[in-house]
Amino acid sequence: MIELRPIPGLPEVEQGADLAELVVAAGAQLEDGDIVAVAQKAVSKAEGQLRDLRQVQPSERAQELARSLGADPRQVQVVLDESVRLVRTDRVIIAETRHGFICANAGVDRSNIPGGEIVSLLPVDPDASAAAIRDRLREIAGVDVAVVITDTFGRPWRTGIANVAIGVAGMAPMIDYRGRPDDFGRTMHGTVVAVADELAAAAELAMGKTDRVPAVVIRGYRLSGRFGSGRELVRPPQEDLFR
Amino acid sequence: MIELRPIPGLPEVEQGADLAELVVAAGAQLEDGDIVAVAQKAVSKAEGQLRDLRQVQPSERAQELARSLGADPRQVQVVLDESVRLVRTDRVIIAETRHGFICANAGVDRSNIPGGEIVSLLPVDPDASAAAIRDRLREIAGVDVAVVITDTFGRPWRTGIANVAIGVAGMAPMIDYRGRPDDFGRTMHGTVVAVADELAAAAELAMGKTDRVPAVVIRGYRLSGRFGSGRELVRPPQEDLFR
Repeated sequence: MIELRPIPGLPEVEQGADLAELVVAAGAQLEDGDIVAVAQKAVSKAEGQLRDLRQVQPSERAQELARSLGADPRQVQVVLDESVRLVRTDRVIIAETRHGFICANAGVDRSNIPGGEIVSLLPVDPDASAAAIRDRLREIAGVDVAVVITDTFGRPWRTGIANVAIGVAGMAPMIDYRGRPDDFGRTMHGTVVAVADELAAAAELAMGKTDRVPAVVIRGYRLSGRFGSGRELVRPPQEDLFR
Repeated sequence: MIELRPIPGLPEVEQGADLAELVVAAGAQLEDGDIVAVAQKAVSKAEGQLRDLRQVQPSERAQELARSLGADPRQVQVVLDESVRLVRTDRVIIAETRHGFICANAGVDRSNIPGGEIVSLLPVDPDASAAAIRDRLREIAGVDVAVVITDTFGRPWRTGIANVAIGVAGMAPMIDYRGRPDDFGRTMHGTVVAVADELAAAAELAMGKTDRVPAVVIRGYRLSGRFGSGRELVRPPQEDLFR
């Protein structure tokens, strides 16, 4: 059995906050082999990955895009600053971030931030964010856990958004079944399961969007042993049929 | 807490099998409000959604495509039969099925089928499949559960495959947070979470790919009350920026 245990009672995360300490202080009883899923918004706040729109001077391009989208030109400017490539600019900006993620508004988000004029950015290096939380949890709680930083992304062809893993530490983000026999002894082809994304999706079920539960402990999922990064979950451009 | 409980010990599913009965016979202790996730492959086998490649006569087009892909022309013919539109035919066929799903090989799959020449197709109506299992579980076990039929789909931009919901019964496939206040009282925009896909992804963690666990009970997830269908998870063409 796998358990998804929300960690309730975390305070509003301030810049400079020690997320590992907050998780432990909230009473999370961690065990070796647990996976701690942490929402990107909490990580970004702790890391100060925020922009004050009152200090943003929108470029002409941002103003033009904002007009066509009915958006705040200052927020569009921040989206442009966070993007290496705009993929779509109809209805919404879908952009490639410098991490290689393709998502709405390059991950720039205004919800669940105190003060209406502040937006959050994605962590600079979500794998490093995950590793830091993992290391710190070992330090203060003496446990060997994996950490997944989650964010909700839209997807082509399917309605709605779903959680994915943008940063990973202490586990393999994928399980590669290629070459293993299936139930009937035949070799499986092309089956690489993005388990870190599935763990992130599972965690979202226990987080909700408005319940102020930015962290979930996943217990009972057998990790493979290999370590990897969230970067592996980004499809290399040369393999991407949908650029 | 949310629990993901694999239902082990299910026999190989034969055509005509009563999946609800198999789940109950395997000792699954179901409760009202549980969500039963069932892998598409098991549903397709039970429904006889199979094709024997030895009886397939590949068309010229199938032969041509098969040559360029290094694939079995008979299997390519079945993929064409199951497709309403081919989206990509480089390296792999990505096709739109008549349900509107966009996935590799239109869901035609050769793994985990006894006998090397049989392929499985997606259920004709996965929502109806889910509803039938749900109704039958009420009948034989007296429980009111939701049912999600899951399948693993690839996704653009991200590596690997992940489980999504192709059929849903007894629950809303999405939670719509639009108009609800966020933690700071500001109205959230554009936040519709595809919870059925997240439930499917969570279930995959407990299924694995080779463990012969085609069904998982999800307990402790609070359903919203509204009922909907898996079809809602297919983005309408006019809203799809990536056709």
